[in-house]
Amino acid sequence: MTQNLGYLGPEGSYAEQAAILYDKDADKVPYPSIPGVVKAVEKFEVTKGLVPIENSIEGSVTYTLDLLIHDSKLLINDEIVLPIHHNLLCSKGTHKKDIKTVYSHPQAFAQCRKYLENQLPEVELIASLSTSAAVKGLAEDKNAAAIGNLRAAEIYDAEVIDSEIEDNANNVTRFVALSETDSEATGNDKTSICFTFNDDSPGLLYKVMGFVSKEGINLAKVESRPNKLQLGRYFFLLDLEGHRTDKKLASTLAAIKGEVSQLKILGSYPQRS
Amino acid sequence: MTQNLGYLGPEGSYAEQAAILYDKDADKVPYPSIPGVVKAVEKFEVTKGLVPIENSIEGSVTYTLDLLIHDSKLLINDEIVLPIHHNLLCSKGTHKKDIKTVYSHPQAFAQCRKYLENQLPEVELIASLSTSAAVKGLAEDKNAAAIGNLRAAEIYDAEVIDSEIEDNANNVTRFVALSETDSEATGNDKTSICFTFNDDSPGLLYKVMGFVSKEGINLAKVESRPNKLQLGRYFFLLDLEGHRTDKKLASTLAAIKGEVSQLKILGSYPQRS
Repeated sequence: MTQNLGYLGPEGSYAEQAAILYDKDADKVPYPSIPGVVKAVEKFEVTKGLVPIENSIEGSVTYTLDLLIHDSKLLINDEIVLPIHHNLLCSKGTHKKDIKTVYSHPQAFAQCRKYLENQLPEVELIASLSTSAAVKGLAEDKNAAAIGNLRAAEIYDAEVIDSEIEDNANNVTRFVALSETDSEATGNDKTSICFTFNDDSPGLLYKVMGFVSKEGINLAKVESRPNKLQLGRYFFLLDLEGHRTDKKLASTLAAIKGEVSQLKILGSYPQRS
Repeated sequence: MTQNLGYLGPEGSYAEQAAILYDKDADKVPYPSIPGVVKAVEKFEVTKGLVPIENSIEGSVTYTLDLLIHDSKLLINDEIVLPIHHNLLCSKGTHKKDIKTVYSHPQAFAQCRKYLENQLPEVELIASLSTSAAVKGLAEDKNAAAIGNLRAAEIYDAEVIDSEIEDNANNVTRFVALSETDSEATGNDKTSICFTFNDDSPGLLYKVMGFVSKEGINLAKVESRPNKLQLGRYFFLLDLEGHRTDKKLASTLAAIKGEVSQLKILGSYPQRS
């Protein structure tokens, strides 16, 4: 069955690359923002929505975390990890020596800083709203280049001058597919949860981690986000190995529930990272 | 003794407000970026540098955390918490009913979303590089307003139309003062540390938190940041109550050192939050 898959657009974005890698046969629909993707799933315009949740260099996408904690009832149904490769792109016929300006999103400039300093020390860097918009804007300018991905190069008929120009070869982004339901158990799953405490929270976090440790459940991730009410009070997000219906994990979740305030199970899904 | 205090400028920024609150008699020097403040301390241009580290709504300032973890040998010498109050400002003689555009930093718009929807639903919002630049730009435009702080209003001779227009009254930012040395023990101190693991990290974090718990040391904060080498591998940042020279904390730090990789003590300083 083909599915409708919403993603953070525009076309040519890294999120579109992730959507193609996730399901090349799906009908893919771009939305202009992360909350836009979420609303599309909630309104049944699409079956699933793919949003970035964590990058290996920048860290968590806090916007997505806060949305899962506070605003949405959607569940994490799946995950996918996309390697991020930046490329120097230009319109056809442009030579590297003629480049006077480079367009891209500021984060892409930051991730290609050493390449730019070594290869193009004299050029002017101009910020775009997205890497995809930067590539789209190249048009017929023979003195401009853009930093973007190969999907954008394909869409906007740009040429690749240099590929994989990112400073750090370990640049990957993890995306999650949000849906009305999470996934059934596959035997190799992960469960994401979040919770807060009414009292002094980091000390109680140790107690919760003790429940997990006692059962021999592997803890894949710990993250904290402000509860937005008081400095020093947090929501904690844990990724636990196993499915929420596994006997061991189910009883651990029940124990955690007795200790914390506002436990929210964000979903169980096949482990792919 | 008056000190030279570097801060994240420009004048009229929230960081300048924090600098004034921290030490109104200091010679205060603005720098254009967080690394600029750090370099100024390292080059002895200023004695201390004040940088934001955490906001009660947005969460950690990851740029500052990564700099402390990876790039700087400076220590946290002190902390200060600044309440963030946004105000609607205009040039003299402007009336609220005449406002057609509002200038500010996108984060300030986000934090005043409900106010803007209720009070100024028809205006155009235009992004500025900083709230201070937005106020500076008001000049003689009788149809424009800006969202900024009272210090900017004072500097740029702007009038206050509405004050404390932020949606969330619990909006505070914690700043740290970085210096070549940390502080001496006062009896009410906090110590910030960071570390990573060579192996499966979140499970080992539980062991480290056990050392802290066993000694009855209060854990004020837990935070994770990517180690930038591999997805799912983290640096952990802990804030512990006590001074690193306190007997109990010193022995706990020694125990932690035996368990982790790359323990970095970021500094002991008087607890003010």
